[in-house]
Amino acid sequence: MNVQFKNARILKTNPNHSFEILDGELWVKGNEICYIGDGKDTERVTDNAPIAWENPIDCQGNLLIPGFKNAHTHTPMTFLRSYADDMPLQDWLTKQVFPKEAQLTEADVYWLDILGVMEYLTSGITSNFDMYLFPLANAKAFRDCGFRSVQTSGVNNFSYSVKEVEEHYLAVNEMGELNSFILGFHGEYTTSREIMEGLSDLAHKYKSPIYLHNAETKREVEECKDRWGMTPTQITESLGLYDFGGGGYHMVHMEEADYEIMKKRNLFAVTNPCSNLKLASGIAPIKRFLDEGISVAIGTDGPASNNALDFFREMYLMTALAKVREMDASCVSAEEVLYAATAGGAYAMHLMDCDCLAEGKKADLVMIDLKQPNMQPENNLVKNLVYSGSKSNVKLTMINGQILYEDHNFHIGFDPEEIYARANAIIRRMK
Amino acid sequence: MNVQFKNARILKTNPNHSFEILDGELWVKGNEICYIGDGKDTERVTDNAPIAWENPIDCQGNLLIPGFKNAHTHTPMTFLRSYADDMPLQDWLTKQVFPKEAQLTEADVYWLDILGVMEYLTSGITSNFDMYLFPLANAKAFRDCGFRSVQTSGVNNFSYSVKEVEEHYLAVNEMGELNSFILGFHGEYTTSREIMEGLSDLAHKYKSPIYLHNAETKREVEECKDRWGMTPTQITESLGLYDFGGGGYHMVHMEEADYEIMKKRNLFAVTNPCSNLKLASGIAPIKRFLDEGISVAIGTDGPASNNALDFFREMYLMTALAKVREMDASCVSAEEVLYAATAGGAYAMHLMDCDCLAEGKKADLVMIDLKQPNMQPENNLVKNLVYSGSKSNVKLTMINGQILYEDHNFHIGFDPEEIYARANAIIRRMK
Repeated sequence: MNVQFKNARILKTNPNHSFEILDGELWVKGNEICYIGDGKDTERVTDNAPIAWENPIDCQGNLLIPGFKNAHTHTPMTFLRSYADDMPLQDWLTKQVFPKEAQLTEADVYWLDILGVMEYLTSGITSNFDMYLFPLANAKAFRDCGFRSVQTSGVNNFSYSVKEVEEHYLAVNEMGELNSFILGFHGEYTTSREIMEGLSDLAHKYKSPIYLHNAETKREVEECKDRWGMTPTQITESLGLYDFGGGGYHMVHMEEADYEIMKKRNLFAVTNPCSNLKLASGIAPIKRFLDEGISVAIGTDGPASNNALDFFREMYLMTALAKVREMDASCVSAEEVLYAATAGGAYAMHLMDCDCLAEGKKADLVMIDLKQPNMQPENNLVKNLVYSGSKSNVKLTMINGQILYEDHNFHIGFDPEEIYARANAIIRRMK
Repeated sequence: MNVQFKNARILKTNPNHSFEILDGELWVKGNEICYIGDGKDTERVTDNAPIAWENPIDCQGNLLIPGFKNAHTHTPMTFLRSYADDMPLQDWLTKQVFPKEAQLTEADVYWLDILGVMEYLTSGITSNFDMYLFPLANAKAFRDCGFRSVQTSGVNNFSYSVKEVEEHYLAVNEMGELNSFILGFHGEYTTSREIMEGLSDLAHKYKSPIYLHNAETKREVEECKDRWGMTPTQITESLGLYDFGGGGYHMVHMEEADYEIMKKRNLFAVTNPCSNLKLASGIAPIKRFLDEGISVAIGTDGPASNNALDFFREMYLMTALAKVREMDASCVSAEEVLYAATAGGAYAMHLMDCDCLAEGKKADLVMIDLKQPNMQPENNLVKNLVYSGSKSNVKLTMINGQILYEDHNFHIGFDPEEIYARANAIIRRMK
């Protein structure tokens, strides 16, 4: 599909994590942005090939931004949304989540993913970094919607083998341009040294980064130190897991040595502010990460622990929680947050062509409706996005050049009513 | 207007702060709910008077809930949204907010209020407890939109006199059924003992409760103790300000004696979670309030310090912040939050007929669109509302029997484009 966005405001990302707003046009050819400008100096586009413009879209002054990258989630957990809240973390996990998950089928995962994709699109999320059971069904569900997805492994002592991780890695990376797989495992507290060593071998074999749940709770870190005399970051580093980079999800309870490892290995801190509040895990040291030059990305975590898949809420909380944690209203600017939500996430997920709006980049973008009261007046559009923006401002979500959501309608090849009915049938079956 | 909501799910509020969902119909006659039931046993309605049903609305199984009560805000501060964020509180207030507010005209306040009302409607907020300059213009703006509003005074050492507060009190309480006025002042840290004593005399003269900013910051409490040897709650109690009830906005930095006074005087704690984060004020002790039986209501605070006027964000944070503050994922249930957002706010604002959906109550209600991915599946609708609900789920907002917002369109007698243009003209004029 070729699309001309006309009469737009376009968010340009600067390397120093600041942003500019350009007035003009953005053109999409196939799955790429082929032109950003005033609509007149178009030789370099038409040189290449004549383009049939099927869809000129008048943006009416609304804002085009890069899509949000949800850098940590467990999408199929949509079925557990509002199932067991207001409980202590361990009870929630062992008495509610695990017994229900044991009943999930591969087909369930597929349909629950579609529900998650719909929610992502309403919030301007254009790709996810997903860890869940049945990674192949997972990858297929996202692809079937036209959604860009990076799978990672949640392998642990109670699941499949390292050999199967390798099979998933190879299979998903062959699935097509919307799918990829980065190595990972569930976390130190659920995974034997043997499995971690197997993952380290795989990381070296494929030169892949490694991601895992890390330092989500204080207890997790303390128990790790009891086991190994090292924090989760230290033990995983000692096993060579980060020789090709990677990072951790949550990263709340950090120690001094951990920051040094993160800097040495260029590890990403993927923060999950809503989940960390709701499960009473704590508040991540975002200001320290930024001060140290450690890259930050944002994730929603799964809908059982959040319970929404809403990047506006995560963005707001990334800065608002940092402010109250440091007791400093000036720390972690809206610009740093928006950078983490877009470019930061893209780099964490190795989606190097999805980081920003520029010629040659993938057309993964969102049109923000500025003509709503929460985005007015226009003192500062970036601050409006982060501090008062809402999923109600998402007017259009495009992934890989395809419009998958526009004016509250989904274009993903599935009927929303059917998806809701399937999700409700799954929870009814489990009762 | 007489409206029949058919094929609805209806949220029923129980006295013990729990909720039930009824399937059926809700009928509105004039400005009141005249019937809730299955649509068959309607004698007690038609006995009264024959009703011409102009607007049967098929809710298609969507959920009717009482409107949210925004129990603390400064609505006209919409003009400062995103103007000066990421700054320390004192600089923000003295170098940015005060100099800009000094340039505001009465007409500005009127138009900025309309912008705020629009944002309230998109978030299902049906009334506000507003403290700002030009309270008469303020009250008139809300009334002209059909919005229910309770004004309070922000009198302090730098504004008008106690005599003028009395004039405002009398004038606004005469304005009509949508307007009322409850006595108040800005806060102990900005207000002389003489003014507070004058307010106490007024409270006794009119048997009115008193509200003020209280214990928002640690510094405020410490400086108050230096001045009086008492906390703000103690000094105001000692002046007889609460002899007819009232409460405080924020209530973050509480001491033991303060809880006792709150219980003795039945004071309301009006919590403002977003503002307290963004200005790095702290996290209020919500669990303690609830454990003590102290009534809680919720406010957005003004859009300069939040920056949104979004009750879904406030509701989520009321419980999520309590969970991380207490390091207990089980504390402050979704039900307690929804009760505070609806009935709690209504009682704080003395809107005794706007607390819940029941026959004889005012028709201040919201239709929640359940057919969106963030509200599916339906494990628990109250938890869905609080933990994954969003303003994008607000399908219709009715106040006093009038539909003011439906399917993204405003019915308030003003053109949104004009309101946005006026707000932008105000900020341009000030530059």
